[in-house]
Amino acid sequence: MNLKSSAIVLATTLLCGICYAQTQTATQEKQTAPLEDFKPSTLNQPGQQYPQVNSQGYARFRMVAPQAQSVIVSLGLGGTRGGTPLTKVTDSVWMGTTAGPMEEGFHYYRVTVDGGVFNDPGTLNFYGSTRWESGIEIPAHDQDFYALKDVPHGHVQQIFFPSKSTNTSRRAFVYTPPGYEKGKSKRYPVLYLQHGWGEDETAWTNQGHANLIMDNLIAEGKIKPFIIVMTYGMTNDIRPGGGGLRNFDIKPFQTVLLDELIPYVDAYFRTIADQSHRAMAGLSMGGFETHTITLARPDLFSYYGLLSGGTYKPEEIKDKSKVKLIFMSCGSFENPDGVTKAAEALKAAGFNAVSYVSPNTRHEFQTWRRSLYVLAPMLFKD
Amino acid sequence: MNLKSSAIVLATTLLCGICYAQTQTATQEKQTAPLEDFKPSTLNQPGQQYPQVNSQGYARFRMVAPQAQSVIVSLGLGGTRGGTPLTKVTDSVWMGTTAGPMEEGFHYYRVTVDGGVFNDPGTLNFYGSTRWESGIEIPAHDQDFYALKDVPHGHVQQIFFPSKSTNTSRRAFVYTPPGYEKGKSKRYPVLYLQHGWGEDETAWTNQGHANLIMDNLIAEGKIKPFIIVMTYGMTNDIRPGGGGLRNFDIKPFQTVLLDELIPYVDAYFRTIADQSHRAMAGLSMGGFETHTITLARPDLFSYYGLLSGGTYKPEEIKDKSKVKLIFMSCGSFENPDGVTKAAEALKAAGFNAVSYVSPNTRHEFQTWRRSLYVLAPMLFKD
Repeated sequence: MNLKSSAIVLATTLLCGICYAQTQTATQEKQTAPLEDFKPSTLNQPGQQYPQVNSQGYARFRMVAPQAQSVIVSLGLGGTRGGTPLTKVTDSVWMGTTAGPMEEGFHYYRVTVDGGVFNDPGTLNFYGSTRWESGIEIPAHDQDFYALKDVPHGHVQQIFFPSKSTNTSRRAFVYTPPGYEKGKSKRYPVLYLQHGWGEDETAWTNQGHANLIMDNLIAEGKIKPFIIVMTYGMTNDIRPGGGGLRNFDIKPFQTVLLDELIPYVDAYFRTIADQSHRAMAGLSMGGFETHTITLARPDLFSYYGLLSGGTYKPEEIKDKSKVKLIFMSCGSFENPDGVTKAAEALKAAGFNAVSYVSPNTRHEFQTWRRSLYVLAPMLFKD
Repeated sequence: MNLKSSAIVLATTLLCGICYAQTQTATQEKQTAPLEDFKPSTLNQPGQQYPQVNSQGYARFRMVAPQAQSVIVSLGLGGTRGGTPLTKVTDSVWMGTTAGPMEEGFHYYRVTVDGGVFNDPGTLNFYGSTRWESGIEIPAHDQDFYALKDVPHGHVQQIFFPSKSTNTSRRAFVYTPPGYEKGKSKRYPVLYLQHGWGEDETAWTNQGHANLIMDNLIAEGKIKPFIIVMTYGMTNDIRPGGGGLRNFDIKPFQTVLLDELIPYVDAYFRTIADQSHRAMAGLSMGGFETHTITLARPDLFSYYGLLSGGTYKPEEIKDKSKVKLIFMSCGSFENPDGVTKAAEALKAAGFNAVSYVSPNTRHEFQTWRRSLYVLAPMLFKD
């Protein structure tokens, strides 16, 4: 399909050599037989036994398709992670295991059955590359920080806010920290947190577990509780059908965010509605949006975060006094030097700049879960 | 798959002769050629052109599967609505149109590709028959009452409440009416609203649009605003793998609802926490749960609603003075005499009983959307 093939092209441009790196991993591991301690992925639909993951990070798939000629599982955005062909093990069942271990964390994938692209009926779907795709979770050594624990939990509220500029009621999700609903007067700072290209306002909670990361940080007393607001960032149609990223125009989104969403949130939630208590961060394309909007409106945001989403240059920032923090991160398999050097240059110019590199991860959600976990304690400290 | 086949059996037992009725409809219409005014279903994924629906309610499907030998679309729970075989129209594209018009409203469906059951990549998924299934919306003549309009919108909050009895944090969704978040002291009555077998706590908002029904009723001044709480009702495993409905045990769910969820909601939301301001209703299996729990604990609920979920008999109710309303409904293609006669018997016995029959609908969400729309204005009137 044209839509999907162009999605692959666009997604790949963001992926920083992901194909090469993955092929390499797979080759290194090809000789090793996986340990037979496979367990159902934590993202499986209720009662579903497959897909499964073993302690090394190998993924095993099982699909029922009695008359199919070929069943191939593609892992990663647009299938750029390479395919795992399944083989027919009974009259109706196809099975297959990845050639090598997957990196820790969340991965999108899809199943190609006789040339048609479908989702794995065994697992949940997640919105990525402009479609709801299958997802699998490779248990990470540090998964505890985004685990669902017996701690007080904040609420994630679905809101519809009026949008004159797009002539509709638009959806956003608002994380309010534990205790918010019991308070009457206590007010909170706000982080506006954006998803990446092809994702939507569901990504930061579904794939990113942003709400659980916050619940756990707050339970451990590591951060000052704040509100997180997440909405759709591809306001002008830059899906493949709409021309893709090259047609990106910040104006429609900037209007929705600044003139419609922020006023709604400040009116309906107990926010501290000033520049010094407002942050903006985003992953990938959401980072480009953060970069553009924070530079255009330094009067509105004081904390900036780019997660696998580019860097700031000192000369881009007019008024140093307005910026409390610049945070830039990426996965170690992306371009770590980029964020590290950018942070050094900003520090040399007198900015409070921090870079973070997520070990052994790529342009994927494990990088961004960790980035949020590192960023959150630096926000709204005074 | 055993799971799916038993799901079909169990679902069918709830469907009151749906297969026969549907076959009949299809036959009646077989000769008529559908009008060529097909439009994308409102439930399609962003940018997806198929599935489509025409002004008569015919549904048209398009699937890409170049090497497939057969592609069949099954509409309805477990495919009991009969199949629509697609035919190959190009080297890669399969298309097909239903033999007749579908009834108004929401329908689940699935796609069988070379014997394997998958979802339609063109549309959104909805949790039904214990799996995330494809959904299609046949525009209804009365769809205005659950449309997303430019009116004040309540928020739908995802909460995790602690559950000692199941040793986890359980999820629920809480609808709070417009203005709730701005209020400081105003308290609201609560409706506990349950889904049907094989569905979950997402069904009443995703399939049912309960939040939009409430927003619209409140905007028109037709109801006293109240809170709606929705959680998972299949607490003991009665999925096909768990033995199915015949193994249903109310106790685990009753414990979660009465001892864990209600106390949490009364502690974290501004509720009027007494019997006369608490209602319980449910669809299908959720009706059986409502029936059992309201009879067991008349001290907790004063408004009872069974939506395609059975009936009450006067002799079942010990203390007439505790019951403010008994509401029983179903679709006209279910068993309308059942709810009508039950209401008459209850009225004769001195109860405030109301029956509602949804015209030209079956054991499906259009029946339950309409039932909530009719029930809501009768709740918490004093």
